Amino acid sequence: MSQPSRIRTRLDSAIRRLEAQRACLDWAIGEIAGVPGVVLELGLGNGRSFDHLRAHLPDRDIYVFERNPAAHPACTPAVDRLIIGTLEETLPAARQRFLGKVALLHSDIGTGDEDRNRRFADWLGPQVIALLAPGAIVASDQKLDALQHLAAPLPAGVDEGRYYLYRLSR
Amino acid sequence: MSQPSRIRTRLDSAIRRLEAQRACLDWAIGEIAGVPGVVLELGLGNGRSFDHLRAHLPDRDIYVFERNPAAHPACTPAVDRLIIGTLEETLPAARQRFLGKVALLHSDIGTGDEDRNRRFADWLGPQVIALLAPGAIVASDQKLDALQHLAAPLPAGVDEGRYYLYRLSR
Repeated sequence: MSQPSRIRTRLDSAIRRLEAQRACLDWAIGEIAGVPGVVLELGLGNGRSFDHLRAHLPDRDIYVFERNPAAHPACTPAVDRLIIGTLEETLPAARQRFLGKVALLHSDIGTGDEDRNRRFADWLGPQVIALLAPGAIVASDQKLDALQHLAAPLPAGVDEGRYYLYRLSR
Repeated sequence: MSQPSRIRTRLDSAIRRLEAQRACLDWAIGEIAGVPGVVLELGLGNGRSFDHLRAHLPDRDIYVFERNPAAHPACTPAVDRLIIGTLEETLPAARQRFLGKVALLHSDIGTGDEDRNRRFADWLGPQVIALLAPGAIVASDQKLDALQHLAAPLPAGVDEGRYYLYRLSR
């Protein structure tokens, strides 16, 4: 839609960020069509991306990790699919359960604190690799350096650096 | 961007809602170019639409009404432009100050509670009318029945019912 000028506002950024998220998730949903495995969602937030994933992947088991679930009940997973606690605790604890069984991992855990985001992404990357099934996709709002060798191109229309995609070879 | 199917998820709705908000604000910003007066923002939220308005209307005085300011400091107005309290208290109290002086009023105060939204919109409409300068625009996420005779067409691409625009004749 047209805009009065080239100024980029926080409203513009929010729209671009959500559009990038959707484009990346939609791509990932298509890519994992032939990849058996579960879906992990790191961060429930208000449940928007969870709702998107469950709508388009009705036959997948989707597990959501969330420190403090506060989404609308209609966008909150069933109690046996919701893993509550900090990721630093819950993800290592779930390692054996999901080892090599994850077809799609979506991580949307960025905060306004860039230093914290970077430290967290540095911790997260190695944790994630062991969980992936052959052919698995990782979609992340943060760059995961440990997965750099798995980087996949972004869908058309998504600006570099706004979202990150990784794919494990089959 | 393409999507795997026609399912409408909460992620889709969030994108459409923000795009509608931006299209309506951009239209309003253009429409009030020749209309002297201040801008009132009802509800600060995370400050996205406030940031959009101040970026595109740098010479306007923008007053923000917010019950509980919690936006990032960079998206929070100066203390003399922030009117803190419930709108039921602060808007009547500000009536004399802004009577006939408002060029643009943006109201984004909807909650998930439709009954509450309706009651609030019924209260808000009559409050707003007296504040408007000739040629003023009202953009609202809720239908304001008291302004129905002032309804303006939505910009291209905005679905009916997603946002509401009103214009007072000059």
